[in-house]
Amino acid sequence: MSSEPLGLVAGEGLFPLLVARGARAAGRRVVCVGLWGFASAQLAGDCDDFRWAGVLRLGKWVRTLRRGGCREAIIVGRVAKSLMHDRWRWLRYIPDLRGLRAALRVVRDTRPNTVLLTLAEEMAAAGITLIDSTAYCPDHLAHEGVMTRRRPTQAQLADVETGWAICQQISRLDIGQAIAVKDREVIAVEALEGTDAMIERAGRLCRGGGWTLIKVSNSRHDMRLDVPTVGESTIRNAKKAGAACIALEAGRTILLDKARVLELADQLGIAVVGRAGTPAA
Amino acid sequence: MSSEPLGLVAGEGLFPLLVARGARAAGRRVVCVGLWGFASAQLAGDCDDFRWAGVLRLGKWVRTLRRGGCREAIIVGRVAKSLMHDRWRWLRYIPDLRGLRAALRVVRDTRPNTVLLTLAEEMAAAGITLIDSTAYCPDHLAHEGVMTRRRPTQAQLADVETGWAICQQISRLDIGQAIAVKDREVIAVEALEGTDAMIERAGRLCRGGGWTLIKVSNSRHDMRLDVPTVGESTIRNAKKAGAACIALEAGRTILLDKARVLELADQLGIAVVGRAGTPAA
Repeated sequence: MSSEPLGLVAGEGLFPLLVARGARAAGRRVVCVGLWGFASAQLAGDCDDFRWAGVLRLGKWVRTLRRGGCREAIIVGRVAKSLMHDRWRWLRYIPDLRGLRAALRVVRDTRPNTVLLTLAEEMAAAGITLIDSTAYCPDHLAHEGVMTRRRPTQAQLADVETGWAICQQISRLDIGQAIAVKDREVIAVEALEGTDAMIERAGRLCRGGGWTLIKVSNSRHDMRLDVPTVGESTIRNAKKAGAACIALEAGRTILLDKARVLELADQLGIAVVGRAGTPAA
Repeated sequence: MSSEPLGLVAGEGLFPLLVARGARAAGRRVVCVGLWGFASAQLAGDCDDFRWAGVLRLGKWVRTLRRGGCREAIIVGRVAKSLMHDRWRWLRYIPDLRGLRAALRVVRDTRPNTVLLTLAEEMAAAGITLIDSTAYCPDHLAHEGVMTRRRPTQAQLADVETGWAICQQISRLDIGQAIAVKDREVIAVEALEGTDAMIERAGRLCRGGGWTLIKVSNSRHDMRLDVPTVGESTIRNAKKAGAACIALEAGRTILLDKARVLELADQLGIAVVGRAGTPAA
């Protein structure tokens, strides 16, 4: 691994913290751009250099990272999703020229992937290469097999089997990453509403509970850009909506953080299973 | 076409009325079993023989139809769906033996298709053949091309193109029959919640409106059992949720009734398009 400084562009949540800590533990200086309104202020204590920047001030990010000597960077933490969900946030930030150019491209095509690819290309043009965002937190990736002490029932395993193939197809069609399954029937499919809203709907449609949440990563997913994550709030929402089992893609899903998420799942009686990867698209 | 009496097992809505009128216009006597709590009382005036029966009294249906001399029957009007959506309805009817047997099979597998196939098999065992439920109302089938005076925009046509292939795959996976699309992005996918709930969600997720509703028939759809239908309420719900265009499968979707539905769509400014059939599964 490189000993050069690592750039970090940080959105919401715990993921940027885990990356910063992991990179420093591996001996890299971390130069961080925290996105205003998204990143945690706590990050400053875990990075060697920390600056705030507006979410559309792409030019400022690039300058900050380059001045810090970074040629590699990681972008993590929900940014695009927040932008997608609340379009007015765009207006709260004055874009710089580079940011404006990226925003204009994105306006024509607002799929999450486009937002992220646009960012990656703009940064590459400025000489900064995005790297796999899980590189410094491999311990938090889902692994294959049953991850909780609680084991899924035979019926839940059957739902995982049926649902896994279906969820991969949903993902391949660029619709969404998650579905809810009970008794081998698909109860709900995630599209633009996001996983949490889908979980809540599944709870309403399946009053008896005991359903299985399946979440895959897109086979075309670029791990530099958009890693599926499951945190404590996902587990709590799933419990509230009556889910009894959660299946995730091993090696391609981050648990934030893993020990806490799995402990919580066990406390709430939810089995969490890792399944081997996505076949080539 | 046969001049024998036609059996009609009638659930909710206008569809059974159209079938009864069409069959009598074609010179067949119509012997109808109206399902309690579902069928319209108006049906009695459009049939030669009309009896009420509980939804689980399959034995009684069969006896009524056979006594009326029927060897062919049509089952139409939402029955299974209502059962699926409100399980307590089951308890309001005392099943007879044939109905109980069917119900017990269905309890193990509550997918709509299973419910209907079970009915078809039970009736076949009693010597009554189910026939294509659109046989006597071909004028109400969606046809190919733009059906309203209002024409879809180029952007809406692009959404129909993108969404059509995706919706067929959703259907082939037995997830649901409808999706909502805007700017070539899938906003929402119908699963167990049904088309109306999906339409409402799409409205919430796409505040700007102008989205396209796509509804296909399952390529494995048995036209004797489950014909996708679009009525005035679908058009009104779609309008309320901001839809601007609706694409339906030509020859395999019933508009109830066609003239009224298309007139309403034109009044509300919604373009309705028929697309050529489903490729073989």
